Amino acid sequence: MKYPNGVNKNFIPLKAYGNRGMDLESDLNMTNEYYRINDIAIIHKKPTPITINKVDFKSRKDALITEAHFKIPSTTDYNGIYKGKYIDFEAKETKSLTSFPLNNIHLHQIKHLESIYKHGGIGFIIVKFVRLNKIFLLYIEDLIEFMNNETRVSIPLSYFEEKGYLIKEGINPRIDYLKIIEGESV
Amino acid sequence: MKYPNGVNKNFIPLKAYGNRGMDLESDLNMTNEYYRINDIAIIHKKPTPITINKVDFKSRKDALITEAHFKIPSTTDYNGIYKGKYIDFEAKETKSLTSFPLNNIHLHQIKHLESIYKHGGIGFIIVKFVRLNKIFLLYIEDLIEFMNNETRVSIPLSYFEEKGYLIKEGINPRIDYLKIIEGESV
Repeated sequence: MKYPNGVNKNFIPLKAYGNRGMDLESDLNMTNEYYRINDIAIIHKKPTPITINKVDFKSRKDALITEAHFKIPSTTDYNGIYKGKYIDFEAKETKSLTSFPLNNIHLHQIKHLESIYKHGGIGFIIVKFVRLNKIFLLYIEDLIEFMNNETRVSIPLSYFEEKGYLIKEGINPRIDYLKIIEGESV
Repeated sequence: MKYPNGVNKNFIPLKAYGNRGMDLESDLNMTNEYYRINDIAIIHKKPTPITINKVDFKSRKDALITEAHFKIPSTTDYNGIYKGKYIDFEAKETKSLTSFPLNNIHLHQIKHLESIYKHGGIGFIIVKFVRLNKIFLLYIEDLIEFMNNETRVSIPLSYFEEKGYLIKEGINPRIDYLKIIEGESV
């Protein structure tokens, strides 16, 4: 069962994949913190969208949410600025050894990334094949091209190897995806 | 008592200020929707940040959050892209007739906007004096200048009139703040 983002991580084993590092979200949060602390880029994960139904105002300062639901996100999880450029991406893990199922991403998130690209921003997805321990960055242009030319509902690993960019994991930053962006925009 | 953003709006009277239009957040959401539909800019309000403590997984598809708290936001409420430029702002209402109390904005939000400016983005605050029915845009550079030169904990209305930009309310878009940005960047 998939955990929605934003669920208190105390309930999720952080080392779910053995010694292969933490989950993708934690690694990206640490990477973005590294970028911010070193004044390289200002990129944040957006909060998980929820609908709040009931709030108990116990005191003037403390409000307790007692009933809420997860909402379908209208945009991607991450955005920000790097060297004056608007950056926007979605990050997903897959346990598949051979392909990334497209139903992992909402269609309106893909359309959102396409709009970002058309407005002059940099849009992409980061996909981690957890059992292969490989992380790829795939630009939205290449994702759209795949969807326009293929009828398959999964992107094969070979497409990531051909059109995407392998991100090598490091200590700090853990997932240096801006290195890929840097290589592209030069 | 201040309502945290994201609380179900069914519990809040939308026409709290008589015939003066809706609250600032609703007006800005409609404005951003207008910008998106007309492919002018892609700007979204971020979800309200919360910490989720308890989730009841009633079924595989339906998760009910039964205990959560509001978190202090680490960034501003709105960001996106306009003509290739990264846009970032915070919006606040005040009932004061004479000044905008700075404790309405967290210091780290001001620092966030300053970072955005330094990285080549456009950062600002939108302040609505609800009892005067006046909405101003004030660039982060001018907000920082005020804080560097003044010891006051409120920005007087006169400073908004001198350094800020008055946004005229319309029908559609309701609060055309990009018109101000456009005027600036030409």
